[in-house]
Formats: sequence, C-alpha cells, structure tokens
Amino acid sequence: MLPIICIVGASDSGKTTFLEKLIPELVARGYRVGAIKHDAHGFEMDHEGKDTWKLRRAGAAVVAISSPNLFASIRRTDGEMSLEEIGARFFWTEDVLIAEGFKRAPFPKIEIFRSVVEPKPICGTGDNLIAVVSDDEVDTPVRFSFADWRGVADLVENRYLKGRKKRKMLVQLDGKQLPMKDFVEDFVLGGIKGMLSSLRGWEKPGTISIQIRLGEND
Amino acid sequence: MLPIICIVGASDSGKTTFLEKLIPELVARGYRVGAIKHDAHGFEMDHEGKDTWKLRRAGAAVVAISSPNLFASIRRTDGEMSLEEIGARFFWTEDVLIAEGFKRAPFPKIEIFRSVVEPKPICGTGDNLIAVVSDDEVDTPVRFSFADWRGVADLVENRYLKGRKKRKMLVQLDGKQLPMKDFVEDFVLGGIKGMLSSLRGWEKPGTISIQIRLGEND
Repeated sequence: MLPIICIVGASDSGKTTFLEKLIPELVARGYRVGAIKHDAHGFEMDHEGKDTWKLRRAGAAVVAISSPNLFASIRRTDGEMSLEEIGARFFWTEDVLIAEGFKRAPFPKIEIFRSVVEPKPICGTGDNLIAVVSDDEVDTPVRFSFADWRGVADLVENRYLKGRKKRKMLVQLDGKQLPMKDFVEDFVLGGIKGMLSSLRGWEKPGTISIQIRLGEND
Repeated sequence: MLPIICIVGASDSGKTTFLEKLIPELVARGYRVGAIKHDAHGFEMDHEGKDTWKLRRAGAAVVAISSPNLFASIRRTDGEMSLEEIGARFFWTEDVLIAEGFKRAPFPKIEIFRSVVEPKPICGTGDNLIAVVSDDEVDTPVRFSFADWRGVADLVENRYLKGRKKRKMLVQLDGKQLPMKDFVEDFVLGGIKGMLSSLRGWEKPGTISIQIRLGEND
C-alpha cells in the first residue's frame, strides 16, 4: 500500500523548510510524491466572493474546481478523516505520502528538532520514530543534520519505497480499512479479477477502483 | 450511481447566481449536494507563500490540507478528468452532483439563458437538454423562470433523486467506467460481498471501497 511518512516537530522547528528540500529530492529520484498538512485551526482555501466560495456558502458539502492541469476539491467533514483513508481516497496515483504533522497517526515518523524551539524532541519511544533531523545533540539512534536531506531520502527510499510488493489492494468499509492476510488478499483479488476480466471492457488495467453503496436490504 | 446534472449557459448568463438558489433548495429537501465548476483558464486555490503552495512548488503532485471540519486537496493533472471519474472519486458521500459548465459531458443539462447575453441557447438537440431557465421567450419544451428554482428542484428530484435504486456499484479500470448490466452487477457485487463478509472486521457497512493496483505480472 501507499507508504505514509509523518514529518513531526514543534511549531517553528522547520518542518516545511525541510520538506522543501526532501520532496524535490524524492521527485528527482523518480517518485510521485503527495503531501498533506495538518491544520488544527481550520483554514481558508477559497476566498469570499469567488464562485467556489459561493457554492460552498449555498450549502454544497463538497465543492470542486476542474481545469486541464489542476483539480481542487474542498469537503466539509464531521471530524477529521484518518490519514489512511485520506491516502487511499486522494493519493491513488502517488508512490509516497509525506504528512506534515499527524504526530498521533500510526505511521513512521521523522522529527525535526531545534533545541532553541523546544527543550527536547516531542516524540518518545512508542511513537514509531525512525529518525531525528537536527543540528543539535540529541539522544537518538538515527540523526541527520538539516543539510542532509539526501540521507533522509535514502532512508525513506531504502526502507519504504524500494522493493515494495508491486500489487496491492486496499479494502475499506465505511472508510475503515479491512485488514487482510496475504493469502486472503490473493484470494479476494483473484476473485474480483476473475469476475471482472470476463466482462467486455476489460483490457489489462493498471488500477481497479470499485465503489459500492449498500442499501438497507443488501 | 451518483446523478450528475450540468448547469450550462453562456458566460454571464447567471449560472452561479441560479445555483445559489437551487443548491439550498435541494439541501433543504434533505439531499447532500456536491458542486463542481469548470475553469478553462486554470485557477489558483492556494496562495504564494502559504505552506500548501510551498509543498506544491517543491514538486508534490497532490497536496492536501486537513482540519477537523474541512479537507481540501489540489492535484496536478495531465488533461482533465472526466466528470464521471470526478464524481466517483471525490463525491462518494453525495446524493447529487451539480456541475457548472461541462457542456460536452454526457449528462442531463439545464441551460441558463438570457437573450441580452446571447441571441439563442447554446444547447441544441442532442445535448441532453432537459430544461431552460429563462425569463425570455425560448423555443423549448420545458422552461422555468429565474424565480422558479423550486420548479427546477422538483424536476431534478422527481427525475433523478427519487426512487433511485438504493444499491449501486461503480467499477473503474484506470479511471474509466466498466459498464455492467444489472444482473452482472448483482453477480459481481454478490461475489465481492460474499468474499468480504466472511472476513473478521465485516460489520454491515454502508459503503465498500476497493482500490487495486495491479503489477506487471498480475
């Protein structure tokens, strides 16, 4: 599945600045990178008076705007979606999703640390911390300097991007992942492929997307 | 499947203004409405200097921002996605998608027409036009005045929202819908449900989403 790496750290520690080095490095290595930022305070993405803003004010729960080179959508949500659901729904073509923030999400984390900002790293043991990026002395097994984004890219690439199982399937019930052992995944995937490949219109696709809404009596 | 209705018309005919009446009317009737606007000229949704803008400039193909009540994403695309794919991917919880523009899409259309703007309607026969909204004389079988958004909501509701088949499935191969007759859909859906419902974690979900990436040897 889509590897998700969280870049965490106190505010003002330099997360975005570091990502402005790490993301181009991963892109240069041929990976299609997605990025997501957590914003606890809410945010404005469209602006008063614009058509998208008017459609949202009129009550549309999801508003999108589409052009030949760019597509954007804004969705009202009841509570935050999980990173896992976000990854599956919005980053279906990406090789890796880099998340800024999301300290509590169950994914590998890299902490950006500056002792002038915070006395010690915000991640402890049990936080799935794989490295700290800092120019200060830190008690951590894996530390990179701020200037060593290539080293961080190596770590991410070797550990999460290289030699990944090529075929992958994500099944979500009401947005929540249904966990499957490998042989069950093989069985379900084989069943789905077997049914669909007998239909007219099947031409060795690279991706299959199935969306089902079940009624009361299903 | 998700009903899609296109609101078309010359620029300045009053499409957005009419949608600011129609959307609240549909929302008041209990439907969850999605809206999409076509923008031929490209658009800016985030702004220079903001973090999302920085992540995009750094090379992220998709950038998202998440807060407890709002989720937004911006995706670079090679050519425009079809309305059908957009509907399935981004409007999975909506009851209806109202599209502003998209005159060439194969969906029912309502034209907003003012003779001071354009001498005659831009939709002709073969455009799947179901009504014209205008205060002028127009040669059309179904016309509503600008003040009669409730009448338009009745038309949309009766024709596309009421008595819809409750259960629905969309299968896309590389983003393109795989057409299925009803009995084939029943067969495939039954097969998928049969396999998944035997797994631990199945608890009568309302929606099932399956994303598969096939490798070279699958």
